[in-house]
Amino acid sequence: MAVFTHVEEEELEAFLKDYDLGDIQAFKGIAEGVQNTNYLLTTTKGAYILTLYEPGIDKTELPFFLDLMDHLSKNGLACPVPIKTRNGDELGELCGRPAALVSFLNGVSVGRPTAHHCAEVGRGLAQMHNAVVDFPGKRANSLAHEGWRSLADTCLEAADEIEPGLANLITNELKYLDDNWPEGLPEGVIHADLFPDNVFFLGNDLSGLIDFYFACNDTFIYDLAICMNAWCFERDGSFNATKARRMTAAYGMERPYTEDEIHALPILARGAALRFLLTRLYDSINQVEGAMVETKNPMEYAKKLQFHQRVKNAGEYGLG
Amino acid sequence: MAVFTHVEEEELEAFLKDYDLGDIQAFKGIAEGVQNTNYLLTTTKGAYILTLYEPGIDKTELPFFLDLMDHLSKNGLACPVPIKTRNGDELGELCGRPAALVSFLNGVSVGRPTAHHCAEVGRGLAQMHNAVVDFPGKRANSLAHEGWRSLADTCLEAADEIEPGLANLITNELKYLDDNWPEGLPEGVIHADLFPDNVFFLGNDLSGLIDFYFACNDTFIYDLAICMNAWCFERDGSFNATKARRMTAAYGMERPYTEDEIHALPILARGAALRFLLTRLYDSINQVEGAMVETKNPMEYAKKLQFHQRVKNAGEYGLG
Repeated sequence: MAVFTHVEEEELEAFLKDYDLGDIQAFKGIAEGVQNTNYLLTTTKGAYILTLYEPGIDKTELPFFLDLMDHLSKNGLACPVPIKTRNGDELGELCGRPAALVSFLNGVSVGRPTAHHCAEVGRGLAQMHNAVVDFPGKRANSLAHEGWRSLADTCLEAADEIEPGLANLITNELKYLDDNWPEGLPEGVIHADLFPDNVFFLGNDLSGLIDFYFACNDTFIYDLAICMNAWCFERDGSFNATKARRMTAAYGMERPYTEDEIHALPILARGAALRFLLTRLYDSINQVEGAMVETKNPMEYAKKLQFHQRVKNAGEYGLG
Repeated sequence: MAVFTHVEEEELEAFLKDYDLGDIQAFKGIAEGVQNTNYLLTTTKGAYILTLYEPGIDKTELPFFLDLMDHLSKNGLACPVPIKTRNGDELGELCGRPAALVSFLNGVSVGRPTAHHCAEVGRGLAQMHNAVVDFPGKRANSLAHEGWRSLADTCLEAADEIEPGLANLITNELKYLDDNWPEGLPEGVIHADLFPDNVFFLGNDLSGLIDFYFACNDTFIYDLAICMNAWCFERDGSFNATKARRMTAAYGMERPYTEDEIHALPILARGAALRFLLTRLYDSINQVEGAMVETKNPMEYAKKLQFHQRVKNAGEYGLG
């Protein structure tokens, strides 16, 4: 949530010479994004987000993300649209960093989503899944099910210091998921990180999805499971079945479920909970001194996992 | 340069109920200001900056700063205009912090000012000094000449660890300034921190001054001396006499100098250099672990001080 690279006006002017965006009106570093530097740029032609990709991001993957946003917006999804230079390039260089401009999206993320917001997100996610069907890009999910065991191995020793019994919970869950993980579900490019921060609303209406930098190929319903975990639990840890019902119903209206998908939702919800439990655990154990990123509590996701372990079927999420 | 307090959309909505600003369009935390949290808010009626004043600022002084901006803008100076609630209040409360909305100012600060920019700043500063003449507010300069000795006393021991001879430079300068500090110069409310970060340009034209949170009563020409130090030295430490001549000439066109002011400029430039040398030295010695504020190099100002020590009269700044 910080500006890692300071861009001076003169450097910006030089960078913008390749674009057809009119004159600069304002330029502000914004506290958005954990890994990259983002500026809000307004010109006489409109408002844009300028992103500088900081070391740590794999440069070779940037065309995938930018092409994806371009494809989604061309297929009617409200998301940032990459702005091209006069030569048609989506990616440039600024202050020694790969840099891209995308259109600015109006809207505000909500801190306390209502059931209505959850329905909007279910609908938006399904629209994204419909829109990617003919997208040719591919990117492996670096945090897919197959990688969880090796990620867990680096954390198990320290897990019980965070909460006694946590290592056991993880080990048992890994075994359960290995034994029962569903195969052959419909797949394509998923958002993989559609938390409330990444969804904008204008009034009560969804106005856009942002931050596609975790997007990857995986099963569509796993993406819905990630959303359900992120949106349908209350701050006290309780599961709001109304929110889940509204989300899953709205999703299904846009993109009808297969029987297998409905059947798989509970285990995918467990998997999605474990994935965020593990990365949060890893981040807690490997905190960087002085880093400007707030570490999120892994136990929030341990509790979500335990909730889903008790679920018998997708009916408890309002489905089927 | 960070968002210290996170404002959720719901809290913002509640706060804005007291204002007549239409519907929220966008809301972004911006990386501006060292001490306070700033958001860029756009609504169907316009663009605004929302500031949350963090603990550390003296709440009782906030009306002075807001009234000053209001007065300056009413007198034609381009600066943020405080937005009032329907009840006429400039200051509200949000997330347990005093909070205020001001109009958003188009423009971009420059990293490498040209002589033309320096002339614009000289003119803008003189316009501010003309505009405050009938402003009734008063605020003592907490970093005025009288306080430098006690500030120096807290730093002298550590000064030579930063640069051998620095303690001596400071001690000798304090004595010189005490013996020669001018009295009776025209005074009023000064900006006191008009660095390039705090001046916006649209193209080559100054579009506004921001960040009045150091404003205080002091001599006008001391404010010009602060500006000259901030704008007229090159990054290699050399003094650009052309920039100083353009700045001081443009200032004088708007607000003619008295003979005493011209005579006093060299010693005020020394004082202004010492003031920033001392605060930077203090900040270097008292660095807060993990603070998100970049510490500025005190030696930059030691060298500026040494330059002014060799100046014989204001003619070397292009004046008189």
